[in-house]
Amino acid sequence: MGGITSAHMALMKVVNTTYGNVSYSTLNEGIGKVLRFGGYDAEVLDRLAWMRDVLGPALASALARTDGGYPLAPVMARALTMGDEMHQRNIAASALFAKDMAPLLAATDLPRETLTEVTDFLGRTDQFFLNIAMAASKACADASRAVRAGSVVTAMCRNGYEFGIRVSGLGDRWFTAPVNTPTGLFFTGYDQSQAAPDMGDSAIMETFGLGGMSIVAAPGVTRFLGTGGFDEALATTEEMAEIVTAHNPGMPIPTWNFQGAPTGIDVRLVVQTGITPIINSGIASIHPGVGQIGAGTVRAPLGCFTSALEALAEVYGVDVS
Amino acid sequence: MGGITSAHMALMKVVNTTYGNVSYSTLNEGIGKVLRFGGYDAEVLDRLAWMRDVLGPALASALARTDGGYPLAPVMARALTMGDEMHQRNIAASALFAKDMAPLLAATDLPRETLTEVTDFLGRTDQFFLNIAMAASKACADASRAVRAGSVVTAMCRNGYEFGIRVSGLGDRWFTAPVNTPTGLFFTGYDQSQAAPDMGDSAIMETFGLGGMSIVAAPGVTRFLGTGGFDEALATTEEMAEIVTAHNPGMPIPTWNFQGAPTGIDVRLVVQTGITPIINSGIASIHPGVGQIGAGTVRAPLGCFTSALEALAEVYGVDVS
Repeated sequence: MGGITSAHMALMKVVNTTYGNVSYSTLNEGIGKVLRFGGYDAEVLDRLAWMRDVLGPALASALARTDGGYPLAPVMARALTMGDEMHQRNIAASALFAKDMAPLLAATDLPRETLTEVTDFLGRTDQFFLNIAMAASKACADASRAVRAGSVVTAMCRNGYEFGIRVSGLGDRWFTAPVNTPTGLFFTGYDQSQAAPDMGDSAIMETFGLGGMSIVAAPGVTRFLGTGGFDEALATTEEMAEIVTAHNPGMPIPTWNFQGAPTGIDVRLVVQTGITPIINSGIASIHPGVGQIGAGTVRAPLGCFTSALEALAEVYGVDVS
Repeated sequence: MGGITSAHMALMKVVNTTYGNVSYSTLNEGIGKVLRFGGYDAEVLDRLAWMRDVLGPALASALARTDGGYPLAPVMARALTMGDEMHQRNIAASALFAKDMAPLLAATDLPRETLTEVTDFLGRTDQFFLNIAMAASKACADASRAVRAGSVVTAMCRNGYEFGIRVSGLGDRWFTAPVNTPTGLFFTGYDQSQAAPDMGDSAIMETFGLGGMSIVAAPGVTRFLGTGGFDEALATTEEMAEIVTAHNPGMPIPTWNFQGAPTGIDVRLVVQTGITPIINSGIASIHPGVGQIGAGTVRAPLGCFTSALEALAEVYGVDVS
């Protein structure tokens, strides 16, 4: 048994090549009993040690053979055409990443056994790309945070108690409200009564315009939504389009007649319409150490958007009383 | 320069595990100048020699490490959820195959250079799975051919002059009519005037119910159809559903509210409605040696269905005069 013998974990770095800012993420551990859902036993720690000692260095060796890194925007756009919304579902992006890494890994001088282990892990970890997509979305959202003007949401995050947002014209202040609890489908043996309130930083995907915002791209996971048909997915993304300022031309969605992903949530439109962003999310157990027990959707609470709008009115000198 | 030094080519074998029949296919060479579109110069022959001497044996070594083969039905069903209709577009299925092969290849004793070459070829040959899907469809269609009763189409094929079909109740007879010429999008430097009339055995995909029959699954390639929107793809598959006897429960299409792929083209329904199957197809140049110049769609001619229906009437003793 390995366990964590030093403090560091494998970490990836994403560069926003247009604006120069960077973001970081740990590597995805897979589903079930994993650290990010509260798992912390020998199985979890052994995997983390392997990721630090084997997977991380192997990917670093492979990426060192690229011309300055692995370009993420084309892969993400391609995955949107392949049924991923990149929060609940990353099967396509993960498969593209795995098959693109295979020849780079083979060309290194890594031991043959490492090569087999690493390509096997990448090949069966269908959510591996989630963490990459989160870092990419963070790199984009942080560029919008640098604008320092306007009413666009630049971050959404939750900690199991509060849901917090940041807004472009309001700097680094967080506006918070109590979180809701996700509903959805559960792994065998679990149910709604064990679902923890909404938590985690993965709502950066919806901040960027993917995940629940672009659920129409991923009809394969619409069963997490009520009746789960294509029409419901379409209606959900159409609803989300009412609270954004733009469509991302770099992220066209074929199942939405090639309209770009709805991007740039505007707190004014959220408060005006009463429509809050829908987050596609994994569901953690309320019991410590169990990990992920399902996946579903949850709405951001309206309260944080209302508070932010009031702060905007103050900053811009508008009377909203 | 290698060239073809012996008569044999790399060949794959697909087994219908339910009915025991088998089918075979060559391996996909990629796009552009390739043998199956009439290319036959040094570039083409060198690649074929490499496929025979390196790729084929490497895949054989990898597949020898599986438990009796690589199961195709789950991969094909998954790819239908990932934007492939598996004739025009096989990006998802090819990526799934490439990432599944990577650890199997790594675990062989193949030279490191071979490993790099093979994983690289699989990773960038987006239509690699097409030939696999064709052999799988043939294995299914041949099982329906063994029924030897009824009016279901069991094969569709074209040779640049004639379009031929076989029907379950009419044995191995071919019913033919002059082919149409595909229309669609062309690679840079080519246009409709250089398009060869419809040819090839790939219409086995539509015989099985994929390709043009299931275009709603692949909105990413709907631009090969007229206006190219999602609604047109939906309307096309809805139209195809009018001429089939069943929906394949093993091939659900999420973008079609999880309805199964329209399967079992019925010559009676084709003649009754006047709706002929739509084939998604690569377009070959009329000039020898050029290879593939584009991709688009083409309709099967009605004539072969009318002839088959008349033959059915004779066999079953019905007066259709």
